[in-house]
Amino acid sequence: MAFGWIDEQALLRRRAGLVRTLRPRPADSPLLDLASNDYLGLARHPEVTEGAARAARTWGGGSTGSRLVTGTTELHSQLELELAEYCGFEAALVFSSGYAANLAAVTALAPHGSLIVSDAGNHASLIDGCRLARGTTQVVGHADPEAVRKALQTHEGPAVVVSDTVFSVDGDAAPLAGLAEACREHGAGLLVDDAHGLGVLGDGGRGAPHAAGLAGADDVVVTVTLSKSLGSQGGAVLGPARVIDHLVNAARTFIFDTGLAPAAAGAALAALHLLRREPARAARAREVAAELHARLTAAGHEAVRPDAAVVSVRAPSPEQAVRWAADCRTAGLAVGCFRPPSVPDGISRLRLTARADLSEAQIERAVCVIGETRP
Amino acid sequence: MAFGWIDEQALLRRRAGLVRTLRPRPADSPLLDLASNDYLGLARHPEVTEGAARAARTWGGGSTGSRLVTGTTELHSQLELELAEYCGFEAALVFSSGYAANLAAVTALAPHGSLIVSDAGNHASLIDGCRLARGTTQVVGHADPEAVRKALQTHEGPAVVVSDTVFSVDGDAAPLAGLAEACREHGAGLLVDDAHGLGVLGDGGRGAPHAAGLAGADDVVVTVTLSKSLGSQGGAVLGPARVIDHLVNAARTFIFDTGLAPAAAGAALAALHLLRREPARAARAREVAAELHARLTAAGHEAVRPDAAVVSVRAPSPEQAVRWAADCRTAGLAVGCFRPPSVPDGISRLRLTARADLSEAQIERAVCVIGETRP
Repeated sequence: MAFGWIDEQALLRRRAGLVRTLRPRPADSPLLDLASNDYLGLARHPEVTEGAARAARTWGGGSTGSRLVTGTTELHSQLELELAEYCGFEAALVFSSGYAANLAAVTALAPHGSLIVSDAGNHASLIDGCRLARGTTQVVGHADPEAVRKALQTHEGPAVVVSDTVFSVDGDAAPLAGLAEACREHGAGLLVDDAHGLGVLGDGGRGAPHAAGLAGADDVVVTVTLSKSLGSQGGAVLGPARVIDHLVNAARTFIFDTGLAPAAAGAALAALHLLRREPARAARAREVAAELHARLTAAGHEAVRPDAAVVSVRAPSPEQAVRWAADCRTAGLAVGCFRPPSVPDGISRLRLTARADLSEAQIERAVCVIGETRP
Repeated sequence: MAFGWIDEQALLRRRAGLVRTLRPRPADSPLLDLASNDYLGLARHPEVTEGAARAARTWGGGSTGSRLVTGTTELHSQLELELAEYCGFEAALVFSSGYAANLAAVTALAPHGSLIVSDAGNHASLIDGCRLARGTTQVVGHADPEAVRKALQTHEGPAVVVSDTVFSVDGDAAPLAGLAEACREHGAGLLVDDAHGLGVLGDGGRGAPHAAGLAGADDVVVTVTLSKSLGSQGGAVLGPARVIDHLVNAARTFIFDTGLAPAAAGAALAALHLLRREPARAARAREVAAELHARLTAAGHEAVRPDAAVVSVRAPSPEQAVRWAADCRTAGLAVGCFRPPSVPDGISRLRLTARADLSEAQIERAVCVIGETRP
């Protein structure tokens, strides 16, 4: 029977306790949210939701076509202009998702005959980009500029080094300066995904590349999402104008996708304006992360020192991680739970998001619940 | 220099006259739009834009996380329920784009050791899905069930046949009944992309699979977009509940992507309600297409008889196609222009969208402009 093999896979998942299910949330969830990627707490900010509503009314419910046909509105251009300007890049190109932006950037920057050097801890969308690209991929050890240097030495011709700036699982930062140095020794390009850095790291949340002095460099390309700190949906590529022009002409997930919905562009633009006006939000997210880490460590938890706004807490086993997260939820606290096969190192953990708008009382409550439910 | 090879490619594109540029449109464009994929004219419908605005206010500017963590709202579930019900399928799963839905469906339904039989005219997102999938892809001639049958005969084990239902370039329909028959002879699954069929074909726009009597079959999976007839953004997979459960557990562009923005879900749901209330919109889109085709053919143009709402008009050469489309634009008419390398057969054409809300006067004007600007 067609698709009969699906039932066998489902059975294996059930036996391994690895079944994933959707849990629809209501609009007014009573849970304290430390599970989302809404780092600045802007997704529900009235200026952001009003930005979405106004854009839908002005421009329509959808962009109606490919960005190359009818899908580019003046709103898209404004968002691209302001995003590039804020983060310190010459140009930007907006996509319907961060996933699409990563597929576009990796495939367009790694033509036939080129080498992609990819960090072992990279996000799924970068990995899929490597798999789609015509270039050859060499995976190197996590956060290891020396390994990158060695990989680049094996290749003549175009090369690009690909890395997250902040890794989603443990919230640790990539050694951007070291990566850039290795790239420059070999004339390679550097492509980094700042999904978890934008809005959190750098002056006013301008991102990890800005903090590392790499913004605007002619050999650096950055992807970001509009769906985390900016509280919306979508992704973008930031870089030299000629790289952006190249993407317009060569990136399949740009050319053959419908443009981002106006409401999402409007929400992201409103969030960017808020961030420009209230740049302290970025530092506050980092403070909350540091405080969460300090309190959890003081309470005897094994937590990774956060480089951005993700705090990772080790759990003794996959089963206990799942039960821990479920017990937190029962006690009114939503936390993320990462376990194999989603974690490359096999270590299960709770994943906490240090939202900039968490109050002291909420931080206190979160730490209490995590302690009380500890397996 | 890093990315130096980009300049060489840009030079080749300029020399070949193949440079693509973005043309931001204002909110109140004076152009008559026959270029978008807004087949039912719903993108600017007040109920659709209000659906987007209300959803943003109620649920936020973004969904804040992966669908498996915080990114599934009750609004997503409602959209999935109603979409599946309307199109006649057991279950549905919503994605951030149709591109993501296609990558998900192809990769999740074509595991290691399986065969994918793919139509030569398939959309880029299905092709990229084939390239990402672990199964082996065999490309067969366009719209050829006999070729599909032969390809399936070469393989033991799981197989899936992948096709657009309506092909974007010429607007021609796939032979769904023949494809389903070939699949069933060999126990293969059928996966079709109804991006250009939903809202246009079938009773009340329920889509090409519904029209072919394939909706709800346990060996048929359908992808759709929310960004064409439904005037929003996003994509969905429709199929048996066990296939949808499988996608939740296995599809990387579902698991590792932020959920669709609430505004896009709200706009699509409002459009679906409109379509249910006013099902004649679908037939009207087909009527407009037939009328455009008849009038253009009567005026001596070489146009492909439309199976849905896309009308393709042949142009003598790539250069003349570009000039023809530009001259239409100067005369106030926006039309699509397809030319190599975007067309597999090397034939350049104008691509017209037969929107359901075009008036007789607008159709008359479009035909006039196309005739007057003919190269």
